[in-house]
Parts: sequence; C-alpha cells; structure tokens
Amino acid sequence: MNSNSFGQHFKISTFGESHGNAMGAVIDGCPAGLDFDFDLLKLDLQRRKPGKSNLPANQVVSPRNEPDDFEILSGVLNGKTLGTPIALVIRNQDAKSHDYQNIGFRKGHADDVWQKKFGIADLRGGGRASARETVARVAAGSIAKMLLKKWYPKLNFFGFSQSIGAFNLSVEELAVLKNQKKINSEFIDQCPARFLGSNANEVISYLQQLQQDNDSIGGAVQMVIENAPENLGQPVFNKLKSDLSAAMLSVGGTCGFELGMNTIDNLKLTGKEFHSKNFYGGIRGGISTGEEIYFRIYMKPTSSIMDVAKNGRHDPCLLPRAIPVFEAMTALVLADHVLAMRLDRV
Amino acid sequence: MNSNSFGQHFKISTFGESHGNAMGAVIDGCPAGLDFDFDLLKLDLQRRKPGKSNLPANQVVSPRNEPDDFEILSGVLNGKTLGTPIALVIRNQDAKSHDYQNIGFRKGHADDVWQKKFGIADLRGGGRASARETVARVAAGSIAKMLLKKWYPKLNFFGFSQSIGAFNLSVEELAVLKNQKKINSEFIDQCPARFLGSNANEVISYLQQLQQDNDSIGGAVQMVIENAPENLGQPVFNKLKSDLSAAMLSVGGTCGFELGMNTIDNLKLTGKEFHSKNFYGGIRGGISTGEEIYFRIYMKPTSSIMDVAKNGRHDPCLLPRAIPVFEAMTALVLADHVLAMRLDRV
Amino acid sequence: MNSNSFGQHFKISTFGESHGNAMGAVIDGCPAGLDFDFDLLKLDLQRRKPGKSNLPANQVVSPRNEPDDFEILSGVLNGKTLGTPIALVIRNQDAKSHDYQNIGFRKGHADDVWQKKFGIADLRGGGRASARETVARVAAGSIAKMLLKKWYPKLNFFGFSQSIGAFNLSVEELAVLKNQKKINSEFIDQCPARFLGSNANEVISYLQQLQQDNDSIGGAVQMVIENAPENLGQPVFNKLKSDLSAAMLSVGGTCGFELGMNTIDNLKLTGKEFHSKNFYGGIRGGISTGEEIYFRIYMKPTSSIMDVAKNGRHDPCLLPRAIPVFEAMTALVLADHVLAMRLDRV
Amino acid sequence: MNSNSFGQHFKISTFGESHGNAMGAVIDGCPAGLDFDFDLLKLDLQRRKPGKSNLPANQVVSPRNEPDDFEILSGVLNGKTLGTPIALVIRNQDAKSHDYQNIGFRKGHADDVWQKKFGIADLRGGGRASARETVARVAAGSIAKMLLKKWYPKLNFFGFSQSIGAFNLSVEELAVLKNQKKINSEFIDQCPARFLGSNANEVISYLQQLQQDNDSIGGAVQMVIENAPENLGQPVFNKLKSDLSAAMLSVGGTCGFELGMNTIDNLKLTGKEFHSKNFYGGIRGGISTGEEIYFRIYMKPTSSIMDVAKNGRHDPCLLPRAIPVFEAMTALVLADHVLAMRLDRV
Repeated sequence: MNSNSFGQHFKISTFGESHGNAMGAVIDGCPAGLDFDFDLLKLDLQRRKPGKSNLPANQVVSPRNEPDDFEILSGVLNGKTLGTPIALVIRNQDAKSHDYQNIGFRKGHADDVWQKKFGIADLRGGGRASARETVARVAAGSIAKMLLKKWYPKLNFFGFSQSIGAFNLSVEELAVLKNQKKINSEFIDQCPARFLGSNANEVISYLQQLQQDNDSIGGAVQMVIENAPENLGQPVFNKLKSDLSAAMLSVGGTCGFELGMNTIDNLKLTGKEFHSKNFYGGIRGGISTGEEIYFRIYMKPTSSIMDVAKNGRHDPCLLPRAIPVFEAMTALVLADHVLAMRLDRV
Repeated sequence: MNSNSFGQHFKISTFGESHGNAMGAVIDGCPAGLDFDFDLLKLDLQRRKPGKSNLPANQVVSPRNEPDDFEILSGVLNGKTLGTPIALVIRNQDAKSHDYQNIGFRKGHADDVWQKKFGIADLRGGGRASARETVARVAAGSIAKMLLKKWYPKLNFFGFSQSIGAFNLSVEELAVLKNQKKINSEFIDQCPARFLGSNANEVISYLQQLQQDNDSIGGAVQMVIENAPENLGQPVFNKLKSDLSAAMLSVGGTCGFELGMNTIDNLKLTGKEFHSKNFYGGIRGGISTGEEIYFRIYMKPTSSIMDVAKNGRHDPCLLPRAIPVFEAMTALVLADHVLAMRLDRV
Repeated sequence: MNSNSFGQHFKISTFGESHGNAMGAVIDGCPAGLDFDFDLLKLDLQRRKPGKSNLPANQVVSPRNEPDDFEILSGVLNGKTLGTPIALVIRNQDAKSHDYQNIGFRKGHADDVWQKKFGIADLRGGGRASARETVARVAAGSIAKMLLKKWYPKLNFFGFSQSIGAFNLSVEELAVLKNQKKINSEFIDQCPARFLGSNANEVISYLQQLQQDNDSIGGAVQMVIENAPENLGQPVFNKLKSDLSAAMLSVGGTCGFELGMNTIDNLKLTGKEFHSKNFYGGIRGGISTGEEIYFRIYMKPTSSIMDVAKNGRHDPCLLPRAIPVFEAMTALVLADHVLAMRLDRV
Repeated sequence: MNSNSFGQHFKISTFGESHGNAMGAVIDGCPAGLDFDFDLLKLDLQRRKPGKSNLPANQVVSPRNEPDDFEILSGVLNGKTLGTPIALVIRNQDAKSHDYQNIGFRKGHADDVWQKKFGIADLRGGGRASARETVARVAAGSIAKMLLKKWYPKLNFFGFSQSIGAFNLSVEELAVLKNQKKINSEFIDQCPARFLGSNANEVISYLQQLQQDNDSIGGAVQMVIENAPENLGQPVFNKLKSDLSAAMLSVGGTCGFELGMNTIDNLKLTGKEFHSKNFYGGIRGGISTGEEIYFRIYMKPTSSIMDVAKNGRHDPCLLPRAIPVFEAMTALVLADHVLAMRLDRV
C-alpha cells in the first residue's frame, strides 16, 4: 500500500530513512505562481531541529546536530512555483548510526514490528520509523503555509504544550495570553518546553530531572487556529475533524485527538451546559464555521527510555519537538481543504 | 472534492439524504468468491435502528420507524460475491419530513453550515448531515465483516458505552466481564444504553430524566478488538491508529479519539510506569502487534435539544446508537488493511 | 483493485451486471447548485438504447427492449444538485437471461477470462462484461454534460461513424458538412448507422447483409469537440490525450485510439508537411489549445457472431451504439479537467 | 491537479524540469525484500540516453551529454528494498540552457500552452515538457522490471521501430526474427534507429538526410510482451488496454495507440476473417489471456524542426529514443497489475 502520500489536492509524498542518504518530499498540486518563501522554509526546519527545543542544560550533550540544509530540486523558478512538482531533499549528515547499532531492537520502538511486517527493516536509528521522518512533513508544511498566507493573510495557527504530566496551562492563563495577543511561534519558542504557563521553569526542572532519571513523560499539545477560513471540510468522509485527526495521529508517539479544549473533561456536563459555550470550537458538522478552531493531540511518554540511555540520546518529552510537526500537518490539511473548497459550487 | 468514499482497497462510496429516496453504498474492491451472509447484514442493520437501542419507556413515541429493508443491486450471485461492485440500497420510507419543515435551521445542527458552504442544502431532517447517513456505513461494514470472518475466524470486535456523563464502567468490572468471556454484541444489546456496568439501570433512569428535561449527555465508547491480526497498518500516513481515528471522527457527534483505555488519564504517569502496562494497547509504530486493540471515541451531547423538542424526535444520548456505526467503521478499516497487507512483501 | 471509478474530481463509480437487478452510478464531486436537466438524461439514455441505432429492418427481432427508466436516489433536490453524491439506478427489466443460459462460454467473449481471473463469473448475458454496463456511463456522462453546458455554453461535441469496413467518410464530405454547421446529435441519429456520408444507404445494406450472414464488421468513430475550452489537461500523467485515450479504451470492443483525423495515415509525411496542417488537432503538450479537438476510436468487429446467432441477439457492428458511450466518456473527461483547471494557479 | 503520479499499487511520483537541478521519482508501493538490481537501472538509463540511439554520423555534434548518474536516496538497504518509498535522483549536469534562451517560445513545442495555462513556465529547454522528463520514468520502470523479473522470470517485453515514414517491418520479417528468438534489447540496440528490418541501413540514410534538411519523420513503435502473465487487467475502468493506452499516450510526441499488430489496417476485414487470427492479441475483455500481447504506439514527426536548427539540437525522429520509455511505462503498468491481481479473490 502506497502510504507515504498525504492530501488529495495539495498532495505530498515523503521518503527517507533516518540514517539513509536523505529525507525528502515531493509536493504535487501546489498551484503555479506562488511566491516561494525560502526564509520561512529555513525557519520552519530550524524550529523542528532537535536541540532547538531541548533543555538548556543538555543542549551540549544530547542533540543530534542536524544542519537540515534543504535543496529544492524542482518546481520553483525565480522565486515562484511553476505548478510542477516541488521536490525537496534534506541530507542526513550527522547520522551517528553506530550509537544505535549495538542495541538491536529497542524496547517500545517500532523496530521489531517493522521487521515482522516487512521481513526486513532498517534498524539504524529507527529507519523510517524514526522521528527524523517528520523533517519532510515540516518542509512540505512550510510550502502549504505559503499558500495559506497568500489567500488568508490573517490566518494564524500554532501549537503549544498544554499539559506535561501534571503540569497544565489553565484556561484562565490562556485567556489572558490570548487577550494580550501574545501568542505566536516566537513567543512559544522562548520556552524550551514550549509551555506557556507562568510555572514554565518548574516544568523545565521537572524535565531535567526526568532526563537524569532516564524517565520520560507525555502530555497534550493544544493547537489553535485563529482567523480560520469558513467552509473548510468535505462531507462525509473528509470532515475537517476527520482529516485533522488522521493527520495528527499519523505522527509517532501520538495516542489521542480531541476537538476543542477540555472537551473530553467537559463531557460530564449535559447538553444545555455544554453547548452554551464553544468548548469544542470552530467545526460543526465537520465544516469550519469561521470561529477559532481548537484541537488537542495527546502524546505518550517517550518509549526509548531504558535501553538507549547510555549510547543513544533521548528526549524526556516528545511534545516540544512535535509541535512544529503538528503545525505542519495542520497547514497541509488546511491547504488541501482551501483547494477542495474551490470545487464546491458551480 | 469527492469525499463520500472511504478505504483504499476495500473501498466504499456512500450516498443518500435523510429524507430523499434512498440511502446506499457501492463497495468496490471486495474480492470475488466470498460467501455473502444476508443474515449478518440484516442483523447489523437491525442493530443500528433507532428505537432498538432507545429507552424502553420511549420506544413508542420517539423512534423513527425504519424498516431498513435493503436491496442488493449488483455484485452478488448465488450467495457469492462476484468481485464486481456491490451496490446496496436502503429506501427511506418513513421520512416524516414535515416534522422538521417548520423548524428551518436547527441550532447546533449542521444545516446552516451546509447552506453557507454549498449555497444549497437539503433541510428535510438534516439531509446528508443526518445520522441516517450512517445506515450505508453499517451495511458496507457488514460486508467488510464477512471478509474478515473468512480470513480471521477468531477475530472479534465490539463497542460499548464506556462512560455516559458521570457514569463509568470501571477497569475492574470490564476485566471481570472479559474474563468471563461474556462480551459480545448480544450481551451488549441487552442494555438499551449499551452500558455494561452493574449500575446500568441507573444510567437508563438518568437518560429518561434527560429526555423529559429536553436535555442530553455525551460520553465515551470503548472499542475492543480481540484476536486482532498482527501487521495491520501502513507507514507512514496510514498507520492503523491514523486510519481508525479518521474513520471514527468521520461520524457525526464525535469529538475525540483515544488509542487504548484510559490512556489520556494515564498521561500523568511517567514513562517507566506507563509503559509497564499495555495501557495504549495493540498498536505500536502504527502497526498492530497481535495483542488486543483498544480505542475510545468521545461523543458530544446531542445538539438538537432545544428546538426540536416539540416537533422532531431527539435522543438524549448519541452513544448507544452510534456503537454499531463505530463497529462498522472498524470493520471497514480492518478489511482495507488486511487487503493492503497482501502487498507488503515480494 | 477498485476499478469501477473514473475521474479524479468529477468522479463516478458504476455498478451492475447485465442480468442482475440494476445498473447504476454514483457521481461524487459534482458541484452544488447545478440545474439538473432530466430531459437531457432521458434523451441520452434513449440515444444509447439498442434498437435505436439498429437497422430498420431488424428493429423488431433484434433489440433487447430496455425502457431504461432511471431513478435518482440522491443528490438532487428541487431540480438542483446538492453537492452530495448523485446516485442513479436503471433497472434491468427485460433481461432474457434464458437466451444465453444454454450457451455457456461464448467464443470471443470475456466470459471465460472473467471466470479464470475471479474463479466465478456471472454468465447471464455477459454479466458486468456486457455492453449493458455502458448505460451507467451514459447516465453519468449526461450529468457531466450539464456541468459543461453551464460553464461552456458554446462547447459542442459529438461522434459519428467515420469508417465501417471499407466505407469511409471523406475529409471533403466532412468539411462540407462542418461548413454547413449541420452536424449535431440529431443529424447524426437520422442514420441508423450514424454514418454521415452520402453513401449511407449502401452502408446500411452492407450491415443488413452481414447480419444475415452472421458476420460483423468494425471501423472507426470520429469524435469532434467544437469550441473546446483551452488549458484542459494536466502534465504529465493526465495529459488530455492520455485521459481521453484511457476513457475510450475502457469501452468494450475498442482496439485503438488516434489523436486527430487521419493522423496515423499521415505519418508517412515528413514534419514540414505534417505540421503545416493541424492534422492531430487541438491538443499540444497534452493540453488543449482552444482549437477544435479531433480523435478517433477504432473498434473490432463484434466477436459474438457465431454462437449466439440463433438464441441471443447480435449487432453486426458495434460502432453506432457505441457513439453515445464515447460521447459520455468524453463529457466525463472534460468535466474532470474543467474542475482540475480551477486549481492551476494561485 | 496532482498529475505527476502514475499507478495505483506500484505508484510513482516524478518531478524535475529539464534545466533545473534534477529529475527524479519516488516509488511508493514496491514490496519489501526485492533484490535491487543496480546494473539493470544503469543499463536502462544508458539505453535511454540521447546519443545512444542517435545516428552514428551525428553523435559528435548533436547529443546532449547526459551522464545520468542516479542516486538512490531511500528505500534500499544492503541491496534489498525496505518496503519504504524509493527516492531516485538524476542530476541535470549538462543543461546548456543558453542554447535555448535566445529562442523564446518554440513553434510546435508546448512552451506557450504551459505559459498560458499556468501563467508561468520554465522555458529553459522545455522545462517539465521536455523529453528529459522521461528519464524519471525509465528509472522507475527499471524497478518495476525488477519486481516483474522476480515473479515472472520468463516474462520478456520490448519495443522496436515498426515503421518510420514509409519504411515498415513486414509481418513476415518479424515472424522470422521471432522464430529465431533473436529479438531482445541487445539485438534491437544494434541499430541506431532500433529498426529491425533488413533495410535498416536505408532507414538510417533516410534519417540522416532528414537531419540535414532540418526535417523530421514519425512512425510506429511495436511493443511485444512475451510470456505475459494471464489475468492482468481490472474491469471496468482499468482494463489492461485502457491502462496501457493511458501510459503510452502520456509520453510526449505520441498520437495513437493500437492494440495488436496491424489491427487498424485489418478493420476492413469482417468478423469471421478478423477473429480467425489473433490480430489484436493477448487481451480479451480488457484482461490478459496469457497469450503474447502486442500493441503499437504512433508518434508524430518531431515538431522542433525549424527554429532550433541552428542553436539547439534536434532528433529527426522521436521513435528510437522513445522505445526505452515505452518499455518503462509497460513495466509500470504490468507491475501495478500483478500487485492488483493479488486482491482478486478471497
């Protein structure tokens, strides 16, 4: 099954093993004449890089050093898209596969399931099951953002760590930050944990302790889409919530998707109470209403905690690094749907 | 965007408005030579029918009477599939669209978003946004089950109401029932709320009260796949969890998906604790391991509570009726992946 | 492989066996708000009917009497498309499968290849390999025409018998008819052989003789698209010529496709001569130029000549009846591409 | 419209402009565990190279020197496919775009239609409309061949120049060569025109004269599939003939497709004569019968004859160079269908 493509109109095909020659994506379906923003692409790749969001004290020892220099092989000329496929390649330079080679199958990793399924697997650092795979998504997502920006200049979306273990950004604190119009990628990136609460320092100390303990923690990423276009979503099998959910759950380490904010917690409320607020926000009947869209992605604690401790590297928490990936997947879903919408009516 | 198809190999295309002539599905990709189980199809349609799972006291007044007699137009001959498309039609007989016609747009319903998006909408009882749409999914899912049964006779999957408002089936109670091997569709259907706990009667009283109060409640459906085949799931964009999530979130009223059982609640645990149990069960790296698979779907309280109270009908809780739909969507995802798996290796 | 769908944006899924309950199609991707022209649909189905194009002398004995009453199950309300799937059903009423049941496998027919491939086949009149299958294409194509008419009122396309055996419509005769603006469906239908030459009566006598002799003949259908929109066609794998060719060759009995008019014959000319005229017309680099588009479909002589002579019916020539099918397939390709074109540029 | 992918199961996505950085393909759907034959890939790329099939006298001056060194970026480890996407890149090294830059739009080329359609075009040597685009097809097709070889070791297919202008390989000569089992790629490549007749030298002289005259010529390529697997082809819209036709007509310069050998010429015969021989060979009801498969592709004379004469290069005849491309497209169609066939039956 060819399962490395995503999207129906703005379609990406990604490739690459973690310790192979390169990662990359082909974007087929990007309209012609779009200004190509190389700086945005650089920035987005930069934001995904391990080490970027890592804990300050560990930046020296832990991160894989990935320059993530990309190369555009096709589809762009003189700063504009040609309407032809845009092929992007990001070389794997600092692979350090020897870190992993002694380990063999790693507990909790997907190495053994791939081996069983395909009869063969690239065990060097997880192969295509590695988080490195997401670099192609981020690059492709960046191009989706260029398209969205062109058509919806006010559209703004971002993710942040809503909860890490027992730490949680309260509805009140979020409301204050939103009112102050403070939240954007720059603001979020100021904290290595991408946690926006006033107790961010406690969260960082907690993560540092976990790293020392060779332990890990999960949590929830909150995604917010401001100035979302209305009418996005296609009934019945490509409801916006359905496509967003599939996009998010295709990222490794995810274990849940929730439309809205605290929606699952609020299910103890009866309909009269529940529907009096826009708890689940912005999507009705699977179609965006033009209101802000909220959704959450739940992530498990890192599984590679015990066995790679000495040789490989490990993040105590997947969330901070995954946020640019969720943003990229969000961009891809939105770009696909703004194109789809062009075909809604005669 | 043609969004009424689901599946890559075992592919369905559904159609029909709630108060139009008929609902239906075309299944393209069902292998030839499969024994067609008409009784299973009848049973599955029967299980989805409104009224079936409704509260006893209200069965007279509330349910739409849908005989749901299906007709197979093609693809089956002498009780066997031909390998050609199987077209299924279920007539809309007891539509009562006058119940709704005076209402116009209903608050919380998708009527207005459809109208805005498409410039036209079938407002008779929700048109294609109605829950009636799911009858085609259930019929198609039933055929998927026939295929799964043929290849995996021991495979068994079912859903039940895990929580309804504050009511909740405890892990312990579930364990007892599982040990007694009691849980199957028949057992689940004994309770109109499809709630398995010993306090089921309280749940039913609660729902009856909500109905009198023109109020509603949401909750979580727990899905369990016993004797799940291993190696299902295709990296990277058709991970089993991704496809299941998309399938479930394509159903109206859903607001969340969770891989496992209590996984989201357990995210306060660190990795060492979390991974010591199979909390999230049965899928690793997006691929089934052969263990039991658990996942949950969260549903909002019914939105049509206020305005249809007098004229239309309303369910105080979407969960019981949605369970056969989630089972059908599960069957469709599994059938698609057992076919996909045939192409994994040379 | 689900192979009963055609089109990427204006997508149809067809179903039905010749002697099963019904034939039909689901059209997914037709924009909302299109005026539905029931009369056109009736007319198109009428034009495809066996007997319609049959030889006068044989109309009593030969044709299967197919009233071809269609029913729209969904997707249309108050004469307008809803943007939801349009499901169309045409019942098989006058099936006469006993005519065929004694025959078993028929020489030259696809019955045995289907049986070998799928291990099972519907041998009643060819099942899904029967020409009856095309009724669903014609119905779907009629809806595609409605869309094309809306956006391109001057667009006009038609097919006629260019050659039947040794009979041939000369370039000169065609030019005269074109200059007189005489050619449209009504004009073409005046001849049962849909042959436009002045020697049409000879052609008809020839076909009558072949029928008496239990023999058959092939030939070429010429398709002409007048006032064709420019910019149709998507590089590189959905060039307009590629999609047209696939569409035409998906029809039973076809054995060749030629872009232009006499192009293959003219390949003896060198480039300087060849390119001085628009021999191959209207498509360059796979994209329509706005000029008239010409292409030809070659069809084999009917294969069911020997064995069905006494019991079943046989057409001495497939071309006349196939013309409405080629027109329908042309409409489907064009509708798909006018939608695709909406996504070409930012 | 994302139109740069081909195939449903063995799916390729190609990219690249003629004078951009690189050409390439991503193959998604190649089963895991296949031995990767680097030598075959090299050989196939070598066979497609301009200059290879060019006329001896002109090899020095005319051909673009393309080393066509490929790089595998992913999907292959230790000589075996991983089941993950195989990304292939071929750099554009000797682009000489200055040859073309003074020319602007070239008559008969697709440059202007691309500009009109997309509002932007890469005019350097034709961009993505250049014949250079086919290098990615040949590379991908080579991997398809590896799969076919694994499963059908006796399968053998090839193409040759059947006719070039008035020159024609007679049925008798072909029969002799076939009986001698002489025909394979090596034999075909011995003639720069890939013409197998005894008068090959005359053909070459003719082509040389055309080149001097800045003229060009078209013709027909005959494809032959020996030891073809049976049961290939999926009714109704992916009949083998339909998919082959689409594949061939997606190549630039093509203007016709014919199933069989001299089929179109033989349409003057009545059914009794026609069907007494396997003129159209090997595909019935759209499905392969296990007999040899024959089909022809017709190509126009090169269109870039007048204006590039002095600056650019020009081939007097497209056929010889196109043959490896048609073989590659054939391989891709066959690989797609041998995978599809795995899903035919329960």
